[in-house]
Amino acid sequence: MSALSHSFALARDPLEGVRGLPLGDDDAREVWARVAWNLLTEPGDGSAGRLIAEVGAPDGLEIAVGGRPAPAHLAEDIARARERWMPRWRPEGARDACAAAVRAGVQLVVPGDASWPASVDDLQGHRPVCLWVRGNARLLQPSSGAVALVGARAATSYGEHVAGELAAELCRTGATIVSGAAYGIDGAAHRAALAAGGTTIAFLAGGADRAYPAGHSRLIDRIAATGVVVSETPSGAAPTKWRFLQRNRLIAALSDATVVVEAGWRSGSLNTAGHAAALGRPLGAVPGPITSTASAGCHRLMREYDARCITSSDDVRELAGWGDSALFPDPMDDRTDRTTRVIDALSVRTEKDLAQIARSSGLAPAEVEVELGLLALAGGVEQGSRGWRRVVSRAR
Amino acid sequence: MSALSHSFALARDPLEGVRGLPLGDDDAREVWARVAWNLLTEPGDGSAGRLIAEVGAPDGLEIAVGGRPAPAHLAEDIARARERWMPRWRPEGARDACAAAVRAGVQLVVPGDASWPASVDDLQGHRPVCLWVRGNARLLQPSSGAVALVGARAATSYGEHVAGELAAELCRTGATIVSGAAYGIDGAAHRAALAAGGTTIAFLAGGADRAYPAGHSRLIDRIAATGVVVSETPSGAAPTKWRFLQRNRLIAALSDATVVVEAGWRSGSLNTAGHAAALGRPLGAVPGPITSTASAGCHRLMREYDARCITSSDDVRELAGWGDSALFPDPMDDRTDRTTRVIDALSVRTEKDLAQIARSSGLAPAEVEVELGLLALAGGVEQGSRGWRRVVSRAR
Repeated sequence: MSALSHSFALARDPLEGVRGLPLGDDDAREVWARVAWNLLTEPGDGSAGRLIAEVGAPDGLEIAVGGRPAPAHLAEDIARARERWMPRWRPEGARDACAAAVRAGVQLVVPGDASWPASVDDLQGHRPVCLWVRGNARLLQPSSGAVALVGARAATSYGEHVAGELAAELCRTGATIVSGAAYGIDGAAHRAALAAGGTTIAFLAGGADRAYPAGHSRLIDRIAATGVVVSETPSGAAPTKWRFLQRNRLIAALSDATVVVEAGWRSGSLNTAGHAAALGRPLGAVPGPITSTASAGCHRLMREYDARCITSSDDVRELAGWGDSALFPDPMDDRTDRTTRVIDALSVRTEKDLAQIARSSGLAPAEVEVELGLLALAGGVEQGSRGWRRVVSRAR
Repeated sequence: MSALSHSFALARDPLEGVRGLPLGDDDAREVWARVAWNLLTEPGDGSAGRLIAEVGAPDGLEIAVGGRPAPAHLAEDIARARERWMPRWRPEGARDACAAAVRAGVQLVVPGDASWPASVDDLQGHRPVCLWVRGNARLLQPSSGAVALVGARAATSYGEHVAGELAAELCRTGATIVSGAAYGIDGAAHRAALAAGGTTIAFLAGGADRAYPAGHSRLIDRIAATGVVVSETPSGAAPTKWRFLQRNRLIAALSDATVVVEAGWRSGSLNTAGHAAALGRPLGAVPGPITSTASAGCHRLMREYDARCITSSDDVRELAGWGDSALFPDPMDDRTDRTTRVIDALSVRTEKDLAQIARSSGLAPAEVEVELGLLALAGGVEQGSRGWRRVVSRAR
């Protein structure tokens, strides 16, 4: 108890600094407890998640450091968890972390804040205890939807081109581009979003002030200037393998859909795809030449995990469920016109041959042929002895 | 009646010529009636198909030319159909067609023949009344399966390369390559099959002796020399639009699976895909760069018509249902090994971190990471507070 009071007293001022506003006592204790939890645990710690969900962060912390018994049904789990938590406990830890964050220009966002992204709450017991943020934290709640564009570091120029095009076009309709600031696809997506004047969010595996990869420190600074750079780990934290894997779950959770642009057969971006699928978020993959190993993971996602085949920003919007055609007019509208003209030229009873249909629809026979093929595919027309007729009910 | 007897008498000798063997009277009448039907009708004539299915070709022909009344329930349909059939009726037609075929080295195959491909009977009322064949007619019954490789005439070098690779690899395991002898994808598939010493079948829209396109006459001759060139239309017949569309149904029907290698957004090969789907035959499409208009139709088939994403000849074999792994060992077997090693390193109860799993499995952490991502995707592992654990029942 006194250790906790001591820790809280130490952190009081730096807490207000990292929050950028005066804090009431209850708020301060809540935020302080979350910082302390953040220091005790690795991202996605389910034992901490369950305890905090049950008794709240401050009381949970008291249980964690041994000042109070755990609820009976959690006791065994907490006893085991304390073995990994306690070696990290330092009363001055929260103070130091907040002070370091303030120095690095990093803010702290916790559940309940206006900026807290409700979408990551879908991670339930594995949601982060807090987020460390550089840039405009309000952008963590994308007003017009967010899409994760991720992929291989060892991307090809095709992949980087496609990532850039998709990012730019999605930004043009107000969408936010979420990625991981890595070389290759991630970088291309962020850069194109910035160039299009759009909003982009970079999730880092290490501290928000610790640019990784170092070669992207300028890019990450530019993202922080107009968008937001986010991490689940405190300032200065190293980007470990585990943190990369856990970072991927945040990218998937914050986004309405995840699209893998290029990925090798064993690419790490398949991990992000796995998180998206586990969260029930729509998953897409961009096809590429089957002769390119950089697309093998994408084709694998399509074949084995039912990822949707993504060929345009419209496909991404459809994937994400942003189906408002008034907002996003379909550029293929002429397709509908032709189909309609062919359907109009058909009868349900009398079969018509290609020449007749071409005449009535005012289309070239070759055009009619294609439309008929597609309509047949959809079960909308049937060919008989003398030509084509419309099928009213879709029997197939 | 006498008109028919006259027609039959005229055709008697040329019929034996085109069949290459002496014919009994019943056989001769059956074959002669089918040739006569072939001349009266366009491919896929449903009225003719129904009548022949009900009363047989010779009696049906008698009804068609007015020597006998139609069955009451077909009378109305046949009366309408006769309006298009009778203008084509010539007593000497069958004789001339058979004589022309003999001169052109074209044989005649009819239902019931040992060479008749049972697979086209799935077309039911729209199955061809006969097939005109150059080459080895016995190859119409592929012993180790047949795959249609079709696609755009305006193919890219990528598409032609892939068509060639797939054709050659499929031939190596004994499969027959079916296509339409067109420029682009079709030609590349046929050529690679020939080069691999495999069997290939070309379906033409015009007569089997009428090379179309003319620029492929040498290729078509080479196909006839070791494989088989087939048409539903008699020698010398012109390849009309309608006949192309109907020819496509034969390609789809004869093949265990249809794979579209490259196709524009409105490509005619989507018609073949439509036939395959309508027949319940598996449909595949090869992805390509989304920046290539030549792959747009393939991506469309994947997105809108659930065509399977094809990246290798193994994928084609799987698509066609030739799943015998003993015959076709999985070249990705090392994948299973790695996955097994990672699974072995995991426990159902105790979570293990990446370093532990890497140590126990003897794999590099980066390799473990990828396998864990894929296992998570499949619901086989779960990440908790301290690492990964195995999931026994697939809850998802």
